[in-house]
Amino acid sequence: MTAYDIIEIKKRGKILSGEQIGQFVRMVADGSASDAQIAAFCMAVLLRGMTDEECFALTDAMAKSGERTVKPRAEGIYADKHSTGGVSDSTTLIVVPVLAALGVKCAKYSGRGLGHTGGTLDKLESFRGLSVSMTAEAFEAQVEKVGAAIAGQTERTVPADKRMYAVRDVTATVDSVPLIASSVMSKKLASFADVILLDVKFGNGAFMRRTSDAVKLARLMVSVGTAAGRKVGAAVTDMDAPLGDHIGCNAEVREAIEILQGKRNALSELSVYHCCKILQMAQGMREEEAKERIGEVLGSGAALEKFKEIVVAQGGDVRAFDDFSLLPLAAHRKEIFASGAGRLHVSALALGKACARLGGGRSKEGDPVDHTVGIILKKRAGERVKDGELVAEVYYNKEDAEALSLAQGAFAVRRSYRARPLVFGFIGKEDI
Amino acid sequence: MTAYDIIEIKKRGKILSGEQIGQFVRMVADGSASDAQIAAFCMAVLLRGMTDEECFALTDAMAKSGERTVKPRAEGIYADKHSTGGVSDSTTLIVVPVLAALGVKCAKYSGRGLGHTGGTLDKLESFRGLSVSMTAEAFEAQVEKVGAAIAGQTERTVPADKRMYAVRDVTATVDSVPLIASSVMSKKLASFADVILLDVKFGNGAFMRRTSDAVKLARLMVSVGTAAGRKVGAAVTDMDAPLGDHIGCNAEVREAIEILQGKRNALSELSVYHCCKILQMAQGMREEEAKERIGEVLGSGAALEKFKEIVVAQGGDVRAFDDFSLLPLAAHRKEIFASGAGRLHVSALALGKACARLGGGRSKEGDPVDHTVGIILKKRAGERVKDGELVAEVYYNKEDAEALSLAQGAFAVRRSYRARPLVFGFIGKEDI
Repeated sequence: MTAYDIIEIKKRGKILSGEQIGQFVRMVADGSASDAQIAAFCMAVLLRGMTDEECFALTDAMAKSGERTVKPRAEGIYADKHSTGGVSDSTTLIVVPVLAALGVKCAKYSGRGLGHTGGTLDKLESFRGLSVSMTAEAFEAQVEKVGAAIAGQTERTVPADKRMYAVRDVTATVDSVPLIASSVMSKKLASFADVILLDVKFGNGAFMRRTSDAVKLARLMVSVGTAAGRKVGAAVTDMDAPLGDHIGCNAEVREAIEILQGKRNALSELSVYHCCKILQMAQGMREEEAKERIGEVLGSGAALEKFKEIVVAQGGDVRAFDDFSLLPLAAHRKEIFASGAGRLHVSALALGKACARLGGGRSKEGDPVDHTVGIILKKRAGERVKDGELVAEVYYNKEDAEALSLAQGAFAVRRSYRARPLVFGFIGKEDI
Repeated sequence: MTAYDIIEIKKRGKILSGEQIGQFVRMVADGSASDAQIAAFCMAVLLRGMTDEECFALTDAMAKSGERTVKPRAEGIYADKHSTGGVSDSTTLIVVPVLAALGVKCAKYSGRGLGHTGGTLDKLESFRGLSVSMTAEAFEAQVEKVGAAIAGQTERTVPADKRMYAVRDVTATVDSVPLIASSVMSKKLASFADVILLDVKFGNGAFMRRTSDAVKLARLMVSVGTAAGRKVGAAVTDMDAPLGDHIGCNAEVREAIEILQGKRNALSELSVYHCCKILQMAQGMREEEAKERIGEVLGSGAALEKFKEIVVAQGGDVRAFDDFSLLPLAAHRKEIFASGAGRLHVSALALGKACARLGGGRSKEGDPVDHTVGIILKKRAGERVKDGELVAEVYYNKEDAEALSLAQGAFAVRRSYRARPLVFGFIGKEDI
């Protein structure tokens, strides 16, 4: 069967067999399917949809299209956490040390920021000297010794996904639920985590604007992961306003450290929620017990120490924990003031875009990132503010009037504010 | 607006503006849209559809994407006839001389055969020495002198269509009514015919299997051509069985000559029908009068003489008209016999494929064609045959058991035969 025949079947709205999907993915990986054929296939999938079984076959075939990461020899349960991308979401920097401090191993592969969203690898590189490129051996050794490691997947992992994603990115075929699910989950299945917690965000700063789409994606990813024999759960969470109070690499690392030192806000709340769910899935722990144990490692400083251990193991300058001047903010500062009295509204999307435009993010893969660019909220979404009160500070090196005006426009003061719950719902294997 | 944005709009099922479509076509022509983007656009159009206005905008923009043929200086009405492709359809070789003999000018751009269908240019080249590549000046001069010329459009005509078609061909996006309509009509609009007769075929040997699809395509093409200010009509005709009795280049040229000499069958009937419709559209002639005048130039030999004039003007060896050994059939002959007594069924598709496989057609653009390969029917579809009676002869040079068995399998003898009318219907500007 040719690539043409497989596109034809999906185009007609028929269901593809696992074998047919596997064949298409092999042709994507070995180059025998052209970019045009990949684009036509993706558009047909986007408009015709896929069954759970088709999506599992696609994910499985992509996971097998390249090198797979072997489970380290150290015994124990391995956990992973993945977010679909948001603004001021540095939960990974908090969740990984907390779990490792509690004995759940985290051999975590992360990604880089793109567009208005940030990426864990960029943030980690805020520590001078820290490396996120490790050999499989070094990665394994670190997990064995420290209980956690955070690195980037290699070029040889899921090559079929890399090629498909590059095509989807320019052909308006990114926003297909089965294509997103297979892209995310193929990277998970190419690795070895026993327990996977997915954070599917919705709202203006998320990839999915609508709750219903986020729920669909969450359900499908849990279905695919469960079919692959992993323990998978998905939290569907709000991303209308930034999750934490800091945006930008150095600023977000500062905030993660602060939270491990005791600061409490929506970012800390969601991090605890994620840890709690992972402990429940990994060890069958009851919610109350999990919360208590998490509180212990946060209160005792054990989680903070674990974060330091990870940074040291990956070659980073640990002095930054005690000296934030090693996580500097950019030279120029613009203050943003409330334009009236009332409840503050904050747009995650506008702030993410402003930070990226100022050089703190990238518009395309491979672009450099200015770690010192940052936005620090002095007031949170929903808070009461007075007219002229300072609501945020923007740190930048290069003047960009449009970006600064975008940041300014991210704030609005209105009479009322409808608070949404941070976590809209949780989808476990019993919900698929 | 980027190619991405335009794909996105169509993907969501929205209507594109003429400006947006024009921009996309320019990006196709100048190379700034990638093959993947063209494929995604085509799949979105195939699954979401296009309004008549969108299809006109697409056609118009493609027509303007390259060089346009200027109307020759010779005064008069210029006619064109286009078939969507069939088996044993050499109506052009009959219609053009008949019309030219009646004073309707035919400056006709034709195509080559592909797959199981034949092409006029290949057939014309059966005349030794005949050229279908002419400069615009030579083409114009011939039309002025002879009243007709048949040539291929240049590489520089409708480049956007050429690029889109190459992508559609490998991405299962050929069978979209608006994409077919715009591809066919863009070539017509890049030329100057005042009157265009379209022959939209349906049945097993046609591109469109179902009558309803053929009617949709016919209506849309008439709509687009009318919007461009041309007089356009479309006949929807049957292509279940081969139209004439000969298949293959030399064989079909022989049959066209025989028809101009007086032979009558479905091919001659449809040719007369087409001429009649063109005379009605071009000169407002009544049907009876048109038929009478066509009968005159066929009966007097004037149409046959006109065909000779065209062949001579294009450098072809005119002795072939009186000496069919100059239009030779291949060395080997296989006879096919009726496998029982009853009514004969003939599959146009199977015979077209068999002829192509034996070398008489091409599986991909640019392949050479063996003009001597041919299939000659001794009995027609629907005729009563006796068991073991000769129904066809296959002429070939290279033994190909599979192709010969395909030819054999094209014939079946059954108790009954449901004759379909040759012309299912005619769509004029009053029907859009």
